[in-house]
Amino acid sequence: MSEQEYRVEHDTMGEVRVPIDALWRAQTQRAVENFPISGRGLERAQIRALGLLKAATARVNARLGVLDADLASAIATAADEVAGGQWDAHFPVDVFQTGSGTSSNMNANEVIATLATRALGRDVHPNDHVNASQSSNDTFPTTLRVAATEAVMTDVIPSLEHLLGVLESRAAEWSDLVKSGRTHLMDAVPITLGQEAGAWAAQVRYSVERLQASIPRLAELPIGGTAVGSGLNAPEGFGAAVAAELAKATDLPLVEARDHFEAQATQDGVVEISGQLRASAVALFKIANDLRWLGSGPRTGLGELALPDLQPGSSIMPGKVNPVISEATMMVVAQVIGNDATVAFAGSQGNFQLNVMLPVIARNVLESSRLLAAVARLLADKVLVGTEPQVARMSEYAESSPSIVTPLNRYIGYEEAASIAKQSLKERKTIREVVLERGHVPGKLTEEQLDAALDVLHMARGGR
Amino acid sequence: MSEQEYRVEHDTMGEVRVPIDALWRAQTQRAVENFPISGRGLERAQIRALGLLKAATARVNARLGVLDADLASAIATAADEVAGGQWDAHFPVDVFQTGSGTSSNMNANEVIATLATRALGRDVHPNDHVNASQSSNDTFPTTLRVAATEAVMTDVIPSLEHLLGVLESRAAEWSDLVKSGRTHLMDAVPITLGQEAGAWAAQVRYSVERLQASIPRLAELPIGGTAVGSGLNAPEGFGAAVAAELAKATDLPLVEARDHFEAQATQDGVVEISGQLRASAVALFKIANDLRWLGSGPRTGLGELALPDLQPGSSIMPGKVNPVISEATMMVVAQVIGNDATVAFAGSQGNFQLNVMLPVIARNVLESSRLLAAVARLLADKVLVGTEPQVARMSEYAESSPSIVTPLNRYIGYEEAASIAKQSLKERKTIREVVLERGHVPGKLTEEQLDAALDVLHMARGGR
Amino acid sequence: MSEQEYRVEHDTMGEVRVPIDALWRAQTQRAVENFPISGRGLERAQIRALGLLKAATARVNARLGVLDADLASAIATAADEVAGGQWDAHFPVDVFQTGSGTSSNMNANEVIATLATRALGRDVHPNDHVNASQSSNDTFPTTLRVAATEAVMTDVIPSLEHLLGVLESRAAEWSDLVKSGRTHLMDAVPITLGQEAGAWAAQVRYSVERLQASIPRLAELPIGGTAVGSGLNAPEGFGAAVAAELAKATDLPLVEARDHFEAQATQDGVVEISGQLRASAVALFKIANDLRWLGSGPRTGLGELALPDLQPGSSIMPGKVNPVISEATMMVVAQVIGNDATVAFAGSQGNFQLNVMLPVIARNVLESSRLLAAVARLLADKVLVGTEPQVARMSEYAESSPSIVTPLNRYIGYEEAASIAKQSLKERKTIREVVLERGHVPGKLTEEQLDAALDVLHMARGGR
Amino acid sequence: MSEQEYRVEHDTMGEVRVPIDALWRAQTQRAVENFPISGRGLERAQIRALGLLKAATARVNARLGVLDADLASAIATAADEVAGGQWDAHFPVDVFQTGSGTSSNMNANEVIATLATRALGRDVHPNDHVNASQSSNDTFPTTLRVAATEAVMTDVIPSLEHLLGVLESRAAEWSDLVKSGRTHLMDAVPITLGQEAGAWAAQVRYSVERLQASIPRLAELPIGGTAVGSGLNAPEGFGAAVAAELAKATDLPLVEARDHFEAQATQDGVVEISGQLRASAVALFKIANDLRWLGSGPRTGLGELALPDLQPGSSIMPGKVNPVISEATMMVVAQVIGNDATVAFAGSQGNFQLNVMLPVIARNVLESSRLLAAVARLLADKVLVGTEPQVARMSEYAESSPSIVTPLNRYIGYEEAASIAKQSLKERKTIREVVLERGHVPGKLTEEQLDAALDVLHMARGGR
Repeated sequence: MSEQEYRVEHDTMGEVRVPIDALWRAQTQRAVENFPISGRGLERAQIRALGLLKAATARVNARLGVLDADLASAIATAADEVAGGQWDAHFPVDVFQTGSGTSSNMNANEVIATLATRALGRDVHPNDHVNASQSSNDTFPTTLRVAATEAVMTDVIPSLEHLLGVLESRAAEWSDLVKSGRTHLMDAVPITLGQEAGAWAAQVRYSVERLQASIPRLAELPIGGTAVGSGLNAPEGFGAAVAAELAKATDLPLVEARDHFEAQATQDGVVEISGQLRASAVALFKIANDLRWLGSGPRTGLGELALPDLQPGSSIMPGKVNPVISEATMMVVAQVIGNDATVAFAGSQGNFQLNVMLPVIARNVLESSRLLAAVARLLADKVLVGTEPQVARMSEYAESSPSIVTPLNRYIGYEEAASIAKQSLKERKTIREVVLERGHVPGKLTEEQLDAALDVLHMARGGR
Repeated sequence: MSEQEYRVEHDTMGEVRVPIDALWRAQTQRAVENFPISGRGLERAQIRALGLLKAATARVNARLGVLDADLASAIATAADEVAGGQWDAHFPVDVFQTGSGTSSNMNANEVIATLATRALGRDVHPNDHVNASQSSNDTFPTTLRVAATEAVMTDVIPSLEHLLGVLESRAAEWSDLVKSGRTHLMDAVPITLGQEAGAWAAQVRYSVERLQASIPRLAELPIGGTAVGSGLNAPEGFGAAVAAELAKATDLPLVEARDHFEAQATQDGVVEISGQLRASAVALFKIANDLRWLGSGPRTGLGELALPDLQPGSSIMPGKVNPVISEATMMVVAQVIGNDATVAFAGSQGNFQLNVMLPVIARNVLESSRLLAAVARLLADKVLVGTEPQVARMSEYAESSPSIVTPLNRYIGYEEAASIAKQSLKERKTIREVVLERGHVPGKLTEEQLDAALDVLHMARGGR
Repeated sequence: MSEQEYRVEHDTMGEVRVPIDALWRAQTQRAVENFPISGRGLERAQIRALGLLKAATARVNARLGVLDADLASAIATAADEVAGGQWDAHFPVDVFQTGSGTSSNMNANEVIATLATRALGRDVHPNDHVNASQSSNDTFPTTLRVAATEAVMTDVIPSLEHLLGVLESRAAEWSDLVKSGRTHLMDAVPITLGQEAGAWAAQVRYSVERLQASIPRLAELPIGGTAVGSGLNAPEGFGAAVAAELAKATDLPLVEARDHFEAQATQDGVVEISGQLRASAVALFKIANDLRWLGSGPRTGLGELALPDLQPGSSIMPGKVNPVISEATMMVVAQVIGNDATVAFAGSQGNFQLNVMLPVIARNVLESSRLLAAVARLLADKVLVGTEPQVARMSEYAESSPSIVTPLNRYIGYEEAASIAKQSLKERKTIREVVLERGHVPGKLTEEQLDAALDVLHMARGGR
Repeated sequence: MSEQEYRVEHDTMGEVRVPIDALWRAQTQRAVENFPISGRGLERAQIRALGLLKAATARVNARLGVLDADLASAIATAADEVAGGQWDAHFPVDVFQTGSGTSSNMNANEVIATLATRALGRDVHPNDHVNASQSSNDTFPTTLRVAATEAVMTDVIPSLEHLLGVLESRAAEWSDLVKSGRTHLMDAVPITLGQEAGAWAAQVRYSVERLQASIPRLAELPIGGTAVGSGLNAPEGFGAAVAAELAKATDLPLVEARDHFEAQATQDGVVEISGQLRASAVALFKIANDLRWLGSGPRTGLGELALPDLQPGSSIMPGKVNPVISEATMMVVAQVIGNDATVAFAGSQGNFQLNVMLPVIARNVLESSRLLAAVARLLADKVLVGTEPQVARMSEYAESSPSIVTPLNRYIGYEEAASIAKQSLKERKTIREVVLERGHVPGKLTEEQLDAALDVLHMARGGR
C-alpha cells in the first residue's frame, strides 16, 4: 500500500487521492474509503447493465440534442466496453454502500468519462455528460431491472427449460416402470417412475410460467424519472427512447415505467420476481430431495434409483458415493430463500420518493438467479441424464405395499379391505393370499377380477 | 367435562367415545385427542370449501353412477349446510394435525354422513359414500386451492381495488399541491402530493395485477387424483367434472390440474400466491409508513398531512393522537411476511407423492388474505378518505429545499449549482438570493429564466 | 346487532355507544370499531399479565402514596380476577390495533375501573386511577415480557424437559441395539439406536440451555418508564417495586429494566428469545423428521422403528397408518419459523422512543411458545413412549452396509478398502467374504483381527 | 483453457487431469468440475480454521502414536501456512458443493499433502496421513465452529464494544441536551439526547451479552467423532486433545462436544448464534434508522442531528448529502436477516447422523459476522464521532410539543390536560399560555408549580 502512487482528483466536496492507474475519480474513491464492508462489488450482470444503460442514454441524449454527436459516441463506445466486462477491475465500490447506488452510478460515470476523455481528446464530465438527463435514482434501479430481467430470461428460464426437457424425456422412457407410491413416507398405491418424473417436470414447467408471468412488472424501467420521478432535467420522451434502445440492444421486453414515481419509490416488482424465484427454488428442492431419497442406500435406504457417481463421498468411509448435486441444489435453495427474505425486507423499507436499499436488493436477486440457473443445469446434466432406475427393487416394492388392497374397496368395502391389509402385514402374506384365504373368491369377486384389481401397472394408470 | 355424556363409535382401529351430541364420529374424535396443540381449527374459508367440494363430488358421483341419486342428494344438502357455516362448531380438529389434512377431511365426511343419515333415514358411510371417488390427498389440497382462490379473488383483490379507487381519487384532487420531494430522507426537488399518492395507487394497481397473474397456477384442483395422483378408484372424468361444478358454484376460474401427480406432491402454486400476497403486503407497508411519517408531528414531525383522529393515542399524554391504522397495517405486513416464510418452508418439505404440510400452508395463506383485505379497506376508509393535506407546510417545504437549484445545472453546471446550494443552507438564504448575489443574472440566465427555473410546481411537472 | 342495547360512554374525543353489558368503556369501544382485522384478541397469557401488572401497580401505588388503600385494593382485586381469566370475554380488542397496545391497556384499565367502581361504590377512573404512574408505553411491553418469560419458563422449558427425560430413558434402553449409521442418506458405519436417541436428547438439553441463557434479557421490565422511559409522572422507585411485586406473584426472575429508554424503544430481548425458540424448533424438526423416516414403510421404507398407531391414516387406502405427530410437529416448526420472521421484522421497526409493533410481536412469540410446548409433550407421550425398535431390520442393515469396511483402513489402506467395498456391492457379497477372497487373511491381518474389526457393535462404540 | 497444462492424478474413482501447478489433487479437481455454481469458495475464516485444525490434528496424531513425528511436523507446518492465508488460491472448490464439505476437507488434505510431500521428500497421503483419525463429517463442522467462534469473539464483539464505547461517550456529552421525545412518530414528552444515545448504547451492550451467552453451545467441537460420531478410527482422547490444541492456538474457549452424535447430526448451536447475530443486527437497524431520521432535512426533515458529510449525495441534485453509512448498515441488516433465514432453514434439514447443509451454513454465518463487525465500526467512526447535535432545533421542539402538558395531569386531571393540549395546538399557543388563560393559576397550582412542571429538562429527568 505504501508504494501505491496517487493522483489528485476533486469533486464538489474537495480533493481526493486516487490510485494513479485507476480509471475512476473522486467520488468512486470516496466510496471505496467509506464502505470497507463486504469486500465485494456489484454483480457482473449489473455492471453490464450500467454499461448498456450509459450507452443507450448517450445515444438518446445525442438524438434529443442534449449531447453533441462526438461526445455521445465516445461515451457510448466506452460504455459498451464497460458492458462487455473489459473494465470490471475499475468498479471497486462495495455492494454495501449508499442505498441509492449513487456510488456505483458515479463509478460508471467516472470510468466512462475517463475512457471517453482519452478517446475524444477533450474533457468529458461524469455528471454533466455521462450522467446527462439522468439521476442515480433512475439509473441505478434501471440497471437492477435490466440485469434482473436479463438474468431471468436468458439464464434462469433457459436453464429450467433444459432441465424440463431432460425430465420430460426421462419421464417418457420410464413410463412403464411401476413402483410403489409413498404418502406420509408410508407405502401407498402404485405409480410409475414416469409419473413421478412427470410431476417433477410439471413443477419445472410451472416455474417457467410463473417467472414469465411476472416479467411485465419487472421489465418496467425507471429511466426518465431522474431525481424523484418527475423527469426534471431530462428531455421529453427520454425514458421511452432509452427503454426502446435497451430493449433493442438486449432483445428483452423492456419498457418505460408506467408510473415513474412508483418505479423509484418502490421495488415491488423486484420483490415479486424474487418471490417467484423462491417458488421455483422450492420446486427444485422437492426434486433434488426426492432424487437423493430414491437413490439412498445402497443397502440401508430406498435404493430405487442409482444416481451417477461423481466423486468419492467420504474421506474416511471407503467406496462411499453421495448425492452431491442434490445437496448442492438444496443448499442453493436455502440460499435463495434467505436472499429472498433479504429482498422482501429491503423492499419494504422505501420512504417517500426512493427506496434506498437498492444495492442489496440487486445483489440478492441477481445471485439467486445465477445460483438457480447453475443447479438446474447440473441436476439435468450430472444427475438425471445418468440416473439408472433399479427396476427390480421398484417392482418388488410395488407388489409388497399393503395399499394395493385399495381397488378392492369397491367389492368388499373400506373396512374389510383395511382388515386384509393389516393381516397381510402382520402375517407377511400377500394381499392376494389373504383375499383368497378369506374366501372373497368366489363370492364378492372372480379370480379374474382379483387379478385385474391387483395388477400394479393397471393400478398406476388409475385402474381404468 | 366429567358430566359430558358419550356414545361409542368405531372405525378400523376400534372403538372411540364421542360426545353424545357431536355430529362427528370416531376418526374426528381420535384427532381431537391426538392434537391438543393450538386450540384453533381450520379457517372458516376452508370449512366452506370442504362443504362446497363434498356437495360437488356427491353430484358428480351421482351423475357418473357411483352413488344413487337420493344418497347423493342427501350428501349434497348436508354439504351445502357445512359450506354455509351452519355446522362450524362440529369441526373441532386442530389445524396442527396430520399433514395431509386427513383428519379434517374425515371430520367433514363424518359430519356430512351423520346429517345425511338423519335426513335420508338410512346409513350413509363417511368413506364409502361421502368420500366416494376421493382421497384426503386430493380433497384436502383441493379445498386449500378453492379457499385460497376465493379469498384472493373475492376478498383481497376487491379490497385492493377499493383502496386503489380512493387513492386515485385523492391523487386527482391533490394534483396541484406542490411539496418537497425526499430521497434518502433528505430534501430533494419538488413533486406534487398527487404524484406521491399516484405512486401509492400504482403500487396497489400492480398488486392486483400480480395476484391475477398467479391465479392460473393456484386455481388448478387436485381433485380426481385420489391417493397418489393416478385417480385410482375414481371414475374417468371425475376431476374435470368436479372442477367444473365448483367453478360454477363459486364463479371462480377453477380447473382440473394439468398434472395430478404434481398437484398432490407439491403446493408450489400456493407458495407462489403467498409470495404475491407478500409482495402486495410490502407495497402496503410503504404506503402506510409514508402516511404516518407525512402525518408525524404535529409540532416535531413532518406535518404535511393531518390523518383523521380515530381514538385517544396515549393513556398518559393527554391529547395525543396516533396513526393507528398505519400501525395496524404495518403489523399485518409483518405477519404476512412471517406467514409467507412458513408457507415457503412448508412448501419445500414435500416428499414423493404428497406434501404433508397442508394444514399449516392453508392456515397461513388464508389468514394472510383475510388480514390484507381488512387493512386495505381500513386504509382507504378510515385514513385516506379523511386525510387533510397541510398545504401551507408543504408549500413552505417545497420552496425551502436547497435541491430546487437542480434546474440551474443546465445553465451554470453541476459544480457551481452545488456551491450555491451549500451557501444557501449555510447562510439561510434562498437559492434565488444566492444566484442573484453571485451575479448569474444577468450573465448566464435572465431573471425570467431564473424565475421559471425556480417555479416549484413547474419543476414538479418535470420542468417541461 | 339491531337488538343490541347500548349505553353512552365518553372519553377525551367525545361520546361512544357501548354494549349495555360490557365492562369496557369508550376507548375499548373505539378500538373495537377501528380494528375489525383478524377477529382475534390478545393471547390469554398476555391478558393474564395485564391483570397481574394492574394488581401489582395498584399495590405499589398504594404503598408509595399515589392511591389510597381502598381504591388500590379494589383495583387489585379486580385485576386479579382479570389475571385469572374470569373476564376474558370483555377483552374484545383485535390484536392488530395501535402498535403500542394502548387500546388493550385501556381495555384493561376500563374493565378494571368498572369492576372496581362496582365493588367500591365510588368512581374509579381508568386513567387517573387504574393507570396511575403508568403509560401504555411501559405497561404493554411489560405484559409482553411477563407473559413471554412465563410461557418460556413454565410451559416451554418444562415440556422440553419432559421430552428430554423420555428421550434419555429410551436412549438408555436402546444402548445395545446396533444399526447402520447414515450420512448423506447413504450407508455409513454402525451406531446404536441409543446413540441416535441420545443425540436427540442432547438437542433438547441444549434447547433448554439456550432458552435459559436468554431469560436475563427477556425478563427486564419496562414498567416505571411511563411515556418515553424517563418515568415522568411515576414516583421514585415505582418500577423496581412493581417488578419485585411481579417476581413474587409469578415466581419468575423478573427485574426492572437496566435502561428504561432501551426497554421501550426496542424489543431486542424478545427478538432474541424468539430466535432461541426457533433454534429449539429447528431441533424438534430434526427429531420429528428422523422419527418418521425411521418409521417409514412398513414395506417400502426404512422400517427401523414402529411408531404407535394413533389413527387411521387414509380415507382411501385401507389399513394405512401415518406418523401424524411428527407431521404436526414439523408444521409447528414451520409456523414457529414464520412467527419468528414476523418478530424479527417487527423488532427492527422501532423509531425513537417506542417500538410500535408490540401486539404482533406478543402474539407471535406467545403462540410459538404454546405450540412448541404442546408438540414437545406429544412427541414424548404419543410417540416416543410407544415406539418399538425393529431389531431384526436394524441388525440386518448394520451388517449389510459396505461402510463396515472402514476399520480395515488401518490394515490395508483407504484405497484397497474402497475397492473391497465396491466389489462387495457389485457382487452382493459381504465385506468379510471379499476380504478373505482377496487373501488379506492371512497376510495383513489375522482372522481374529478381521472378526474384531467387523464387529458392528464394537464399531458403534468407536472400535476401541 | 486450451493452453493450460495438466498432470494426471488419481483417486478411488480413477484418473483426473489437474492443472500442472495446482497443489490440489484428484478429489479437489473433481469438485471443481462438479460444482460450477456460485464462483465463490469458502470464506477465508474457514480456510484458516481448516489450516488450524489440520495442524492440531497432526500434532495430536503424533502425540498419540498415529503418525510419526516427522510426518506430523511436515503436515503441521504446511497446515499453518494454509491457516496463514498463503495458499488460498489453491482452494478453488465452490461453497455450493457436497453438503458435508468433504470436497473442501479433501482440498485441504490434498494441498497440505502436496506441500508436506515436497518438504519431507516422501509421500504424504491426503487421507491416510493428513486426514488421519478424522472424517469430513467431524472436521468440516469443526472448522465451521472454530471459524464462527473466532469471528464472533475477535471481530463482532470487539467491533460492537468499540461502537458501545463511542455511544457511551456521546451519551455522556449529550446528557443535558433536551429534546422532544417521539412515540408513534408523534410529539411526546421531553427526553435528553443523552438518554436517546444511552438507549442505543444499551442495545449494543445487550448485543454483546447475547452473543457471549451463546458461545458455550457454539464452541463445542465435533472433532473426534469421525464418520458418525462414534469416533471409529480415531484414538481414545483424540477429540479432547485436538480441542485443547485449538483452544490454545486461538485463545478461544473451544471444547470437545459433549455429545459427538449431536455435534455432527445437527448444527443447532450455529442456528442459535445466527439468531443472536440477527438480534444484534436488528438492534443496529434501530440505531442506524434513528440516526438518519434525526439527521433528515436539512430543511424538510427533523434536522436534530448533523451527520458528517462523507460524499456527494446525488448525481443530479447539487449539494445533497445523504446518510450513507446508515443506509449501508440497514442493507447489512437486511442481508443478515436473510442469511439467518438460510441458516435456520439449512439447520432444520439434517437427517440421521449428519446435517448436509454445512457449507451454506458456514458461508452465511461467517459473512453475517464480517458484515456486522464492519458496519459497527463505520457507525462509530464515520458517523457518531462526527455527529453534531442541532441544539436550537432540539430545544425548540422540546418546548413546542403539546405533550409537555403531561405533568399537569396530577393537578388538573387527564381530561382537562387533554383539552388544554388540543387548544394549544389549534390556536398555536403554548401550553403555559392556555393554562394561564383557563385560570388554573391561581387555583389548582401556583405559578412556581406551573413553571417547575413545564421545565422540559426536569421533565426529561422524570420530573423528580
